[in-house]
Amino acid sequence: MSGFQSMVYKDDTICALASPQGSGAIAVIRLSGKESLNIALAHFSARKKPINHDNIISHHLYFGDFIDGDKIIDEILLSYFKGPNSYTTEDIIEISCHGSTYVQQLIIQVLLDSGARMADAGEFTMRAFYNGRMDLSQAEGVADLIASQSKTAHQLALNQMRGGFSDKIKELRTELLNFTSLIELELDFAEEDVEFADRKQFLLLINRLKLELNKLIESFKLGNVIKKGIPVAIIGKPNAGKSTLLNALLNEEKALVSEIPGTTRDSIEDTIVIDGYTFRFIDTAGLRNSTDVIENMGIERTYEKINQAVIILYICDISEINREHIDEVFNEFKSYINDIDKHFIFVANKIDELETIPPHLKDMLEQNSVFVSAKRKENIHLLASTLVSKVKDKNIGNEIIVSNSRHYDALAKSLDSLIQVEIGFQNDIPTDLISIDIRQCLHHLGTITGEITTDEVLGNIFGKFCIGK
Amino acid sequence: MSGFQSMVYKDDTICALASPQGSGAIAVIRLSGKESLNIALAHFSARKKPINHDNIISHHLYFGDFIDGDKIIDEILLSYFKGPNSYTTEDIIEISCHGSTYVQQLIIQVLLDSGARMADAGEFTMRAFYNGRMDLSQAEGVADLIASQSKTAHQLALNQMRGGFSDKIKELRTELLNFTSLIELELDFAEEDVEFADRKQFLLLINRLKLELNKLIESFKLGNVIKKGIPVAIIGKPNAGKSTLLNALLNEEKALVSEIPGTTRDSIEDTIVIDGYTFRFIDTAGLRNSTDVIENMGIERTYEKINQAVIILYICDISEINREHIDEVFNEFKSYINDIDKHFIFVANKIDELETIPPHLKDMLEQNSVFVSAKRKENIHLLASTLVSKVKDKNIGNEIIVSNSRHYDALAKSLDSLIQVEIGFQNDIPTDLISIDIRQCLHHLGTITGEITTDEVLGNIFGKFCIGK
Repeated sequence: MSGFQSMVYKDDTICALASPQGSGAIAVIRLSGKESLNIALAHFSARKKPINHDNIISHHLYFGDFIDGDKIIDEILLSYFKGPNSYTTEDIIEISCHGSTYVQQLIIQVLLDSGARMADAGEFTMRAFYNGRMDLSQAEGVADLIASQSKTAHQLALNQMRGGFSDKIKELRTELLNFTSLIELELDFAEEDVEFADRKQFLLLINRLKLELNKLIESFKLGNVIKKGIPVAIIGKPNAGKSTLLNALLNEEKALVSEIPGTTRDSIEDTIVIDGYTFRFIDTAGLRNSTDVIENMGIERTYEKINQAVIILYICDISEINREHIDEVFNEFKSYINDIDKHFIFVANKIDELETIPPHLKDMLEQNSVFVSAKRKENIHLLASTLVSKVKDKNIGNEIIVSNSRHYDALAKSLDSLIQVEIGFQNDIPTDLISIDIRQCLHHLGTITGEITTDEVLGNIFGKFCIGK
Repeated sequence: MSGFQSMVYKDDTICALASPQGSGAIAVIRLSGKESLNIALAHFSARKKPINHDNIISHHLYFGDFIDGDKIIDEILLSYFKGPNSYTTEDIIEISCHGSTYVQQLIIQVLLDSGARMADAGEFTMRAFYNGRMDLSQAEGVADLIASQSKTAHQLALNQMRGGFSDKIKELRTELLNFTSLIELELDFAEEDVEFADRKQFLLLINRLKLELNKLIESFKLGNVIKKGIPVAIIGKPNAGKSTLLNALLNEEKALVSEIPGTTRDSIEDTIVIDGYTFRFIDTAGLRNSTDVIENMGIERTYEKINQAVIILYICDISEINREHIDEVFNEFKSYINDIDKHFIFVANKIDELETIPPHLKDMLEQNSVFVSAKRKENIHLLASTLVSKVKDKNIGNEIIVSNSRHYDALAKSLDSLIQVEIGFQNDIPTDLISIDIRQCLHHLGTITGEITTDEVLGNIFGKFCIGK
């Protein structure tokens, strides 16, 4: 009753703008439901020869006028997707019209007046889910795909949408379910004291499932980083040039995508996409005196930020550094330098203020260092490629990576239940009690793909979609 | 060389995002040119059965994967419009992908890497023009249609795009051209002193053309108002409630389109669309004391604004009005009240502050009056419908209305030349001199439809288009 829409499946006819809001060359308006074709035919006059229920061909594009009575509203392309060969598995009509917001409104108004209803957010995809065209995790992949802003996040969402993860979960669940039915059979014959299910086999299965679940749970760390961006803590004195550096990196990024419109930097979060990877820069203001690293590190908040980070980017004014300073910094971040999951980059900024880089500095700084001039945008591409090289090995191939916190939660709960089942068997707990934990495990796995679900969960998931999807 | 792109027709393959910028359920990317199909087939894997040059069907939608090498970029719908049965008359491919800005960029990048070029603004429509699919005035109609924000502006643009105006201009030009060829023939046989063209017939033709041109030129006044909005001057003391009223009207308008997204009010110009008509409110700040109407009217600027207006909306605080005040106002705007092209509305605001409206006020105020409470939004619908009723008779049917100032200019120049021709004949000016004016007239008419054009004109027209159209 609170906050989320009721997600009861209705079979009326819905319509919505499917292309992004605003004005453009063309816009696409979509209808789905039993009345789609009737409504469309009543408002369409094909240019070549009249079309009707009998001669209209699915997946064909017709050029003609969208009409309201004897008034022509626009010249459009109309296409018909005969169910079940459509996104929702219902009959779908797509209208491709001129991209004026006024024309969009006019056409939608005519469709509403003809009996269609404005679709709720995500309602097309919800129908696809209800009609078995995709499961819940795949539907979430669709939303992630539309929201994706980087190569890796996009790849992750695409994999999820295409069902790799769903198949894995269904496979695990089926294995557990098969065995469970034998256990439950024992309960029906409780008085006869028979064992249909081989306990040893079952423990082996549980172990294997635990391993698989653990692998998926572990993958969330990477998945989450990919989705939200690789956290980079920038440390340095206030005048070391942090924001100039961020802007220079942003410029670097812009150069890569100069021909294509699109915003890649979220100004609030300072997120920058380089070479398909999203880097999320974490503000660590408060480091007043960078030569006094350890004292400054004492600030708990800064430590926390550094702990969250996958990459530490230490920036300083090249004219202010000396041997001790460098040693101190590298000592402080030794753990990062040697950790395979964490990385350290030393950025010596303001090289434009020196005639040449003193050779002794060059020698001192090791391979984790980059000399730049953020102001003059010198060597920024080197820093960009260093950032990318630190994470490039984390390649998203075909292995399954969990990136959705709802899935992570369900997997963790499944694992907990499975551990309870294991403990139960080891301690000879009665089968009917163990059976409850098995059911719990099956339940949590089922929530991922939507075999088990609630109105609230569906409301949360589809409510976050855009209208028209 | 300045400001505009060179509009030389190139036959390479162009691509662009055709749907509005930003993120949405789906996005549409377009390719046009000889290589469209090659590029598309190299990056598409159809789901059902492979498609190739031999089996692909025009105007058919194929579901499958957009691929780059062995990487899947997205699940898409692909359609092919075999030239000349396409918008540009070239081969066109349309890709309907997920509406993530990242996916859009990725697909466009692949198309660019495969040899397509990013389309310039309006380049698809420019190709349609160069290839004879539409003339210049129709192309301008396409741009107007995309920019249209009201019923009437939309209707005007649609009529223009569909070629009614072009046909009229071409008809006039052809008539003049036929006659001219006879005149020019005379010049070839100048020594023989023959008259192939009947002067009387020609003067009749010129008269008819003058009438037609005048009608078109006159229509621009209405066309311009429709396109830019009906100017409404709001007059009243600063505390009479002008901006509350504008907001209340805006709300009324929003209620009409509540279900449909889209901005209908331009905050800079205070433009409000009511029932399909755009009203453009003109600020007439400076009217300090509304009871002293005449003195205040003395301000020249205010007079000017009132002259520009089609509707004068006089707003006052109902508690502050009396017999004399009303008489004064109605006297002042008598000319408006009786003019069929200008209108006056008296708005008595703040009725919420009175228990009841005093009967003597009711009697005093005539039919051009509305009692409202802008604050409580009472009777705002009455004011809205009064505004609409004042302009509703200006119905845009099938008659031709000029709304483009470039066309207006060309028509005025054509008329000027035609008058010179007439004067020439009346004064027995030598035929070869008259012939120059006739050529001028033909030239100006030809610029409207683009039979005669320059790089600069084309640059101005297509440069204003959005990219992707």
